[in-house]
Amino acid sequence: MTQPFSKPAGRLAFTTDGYVVNPIFFPGGDIGKLAVCGTVNDLAMNGARPLYLSLSAIIEEGFLLSELERIMQSVKKATEEAEVSIIAGDTKVVNRGQADKLFITTSGVGIISPGIDISGANARAGDKVLLSGTIGDHGIAIMSQREGLRFSMTLESDCAPLNKLVSQMLEGSSSIHCLRDPTRGGLATTLNELARQSKVGIVVEEAKISVKEEVKAVCELLGLDPIYVANEGKLVAVVDSADANKILARMKKNNYGRDAAIIGEVTNEHPGKVVMKTKLGPSRIVDMLSGELLPRIC
Amino acid sequence: MTQPFSKPAGRLAFTTDGYVVNPIFFPGGDIGKLAVCGTVNDLAMNGARPLYLSLSAIIEEGFLLSELERIMQSVKKATEEAEVSIIAGDTKVVNRGQADKLFITTSGVGIISPGIDISGANARAGDKVLLSGTIGDHGIAIMSQREGLRFSMTLESDCAPLNKLVSQMLEGSSSIHCLRDPTRGGLATTLNELARQSKVGIVVEEAKISVKEEVKAVCELLGLDPIYVANEGKLVAVVDSADANKILARMKKNNYGRDAAIIGEVTNEHPGKVVMKTKLGPSRIVDMLSGELLPRIC
Repeated sequence: MTQPFSKPAGRLAFTTDGYVVNPIFFPGGDIGKLAVCGTVNDLAMNGARPLYLSLSAIIEEGFLLSELERIMQSVKKATEEAEVSIIAGDTKVVNRGQADKLFITTSGVGIISPGIDISGANARAGDKVLLSGTIGDHGIAIMSQREGLRFSMTLESDCAPLNKLVSQMLEGSSSIHCLRDPTRGGLATTLNELARQSKVGIVVEEAKISVKEEVKAVCELLGLDPIYVANEGKLVAVVDSADANKILARMKKNNYGRDAAIIGEVTNEHPGKVVMKTKLGPSRIVDMLSGELLPRIC
Repeated sequence: MTQPFSKPAGRLAFTTDGYVVNPIFFPGGDIGKLAVCGTVNDLAMNGARPLYLSLSAIIEEGFLLSELERIMQSVKKATEEAEVSIIAGDTKVVNRGQADKLFITTSGVGIISPGIDISGANARAGDKVLLSGTIGDHGIAIMSQREGLRFSMTLESDCAPLNKLVSQMLEGSSSIHCLRDPTRGGLATTLNELARQSKVGIVVEEAKISVKEEVKAVCELLGLDPIYVANEGKLVAVVDSADANKILARMKKNNYGRDAAIIGEVTNEHPGKVVMKTKLGPSRIVDMLSGELLPRIC
């Protein structure tokens, strides 16, 4: 299906992502919500206002129509929250056993307003590093569901569209240098990517990084470090230090940024490397994730 | 991956399609070429000049890297021929048995120049119906490969990017009312869609519709009618009768339109219905395809 649309002012951004998450329903969301939020967030992290999405579904023969409808309802709900429109779509059905229930690929087009220049290469020494909330919620929610772990408290994925949080952060400010959502590979991988792209060092304080008790518990049980676990509703921002507190205050006003904190800063020392000041005192180098922690996390 | 791009003049068009063709390599192409041509053609059939594509691949664990490289080479070749750029991409790997080798979803953004108004609802009584070449090549090539049928002559898919053919047809002319590529459901389904959308009747002459001997032979063997078999490099155009011969001459100059012909015309009689004058004399109603002739044809 092709759909013409009217042309807005500014530069355009275009993104795509395939979603193969297993299970397709999980606490806090499903593959449909995830696909919409993921593409919305990809655009938002480039400073683009998401406008139009496409959705292509590959469905295994025998997949229940009732489940497909439930997923499309959550697609609808997510697009309404993010205020984006799905204007193109496709479905393909393959024989039983040729796909695992349902795969969704979303693409998105957005608009980058004049004057906005956000890039992973823009971090400068002295900048502050902000994190919008707790880490590891999505990855641990998926893993718990998959492994059949049960808790006294319900652990939910943080899956959410962050475009409004971003637009509130950007309001009247050109001091946001980098934005990124720490999905696959988690916070540690995102910080390393920014350090490498910007050729700077990043220092973060472990004590400033929030991790929910349930996430901590599962991580200890399974020998995982939450800084490597995927998030689907969090962002990292690198901002001019002069505006850091102002931007932090704006973030805290948004439901998806209410636990935001300044977790560290950018330095000219150890370019390309991320160092964490641990709660116990000594600093350690935080490396990128090598290999994949969990398959089919998104 | 998100990529900003500069904004061209005119209306924009956005499309998406998933490709699950089986086998992934077939005479005349592979899943990569098909995915690029399919999305390029979707845009071209709306009168849009294709500009940017995204490509998302879902890959089964154990799929040979050498085959993936071969497919990406044909993606590259097809984008070069169509003069489009892939500016966003994603890959996901799923466990063995959770997908059948490789699925590709492409999305595309194109530009519709001012003054172009092509729609399935624009056919008017008196218009001529043009077909760009032989029908059924893609579907029969896939089916032959799948069923292990062998012929003395090689039957190839017609899979091709048609955007240049379309831009040559459009040159300085606003008399093209409808454009459509007869993919799933074949020529018969496309003609029925146009008749219904435009609320007109369409009359075509069987003798004017070219079918290759090999396609005829396989269709007879399997009890298929080539007018229902999928094409991936053909188009149907409904044009003002005054300009039909001029447009036909332009089509014949392009390699993908060299066998083009005027196959029929639009009438006010039997609105919503397609009638075929058979070679033997009598006319018959050509209905839409009900159900799917072949699964995983694209």
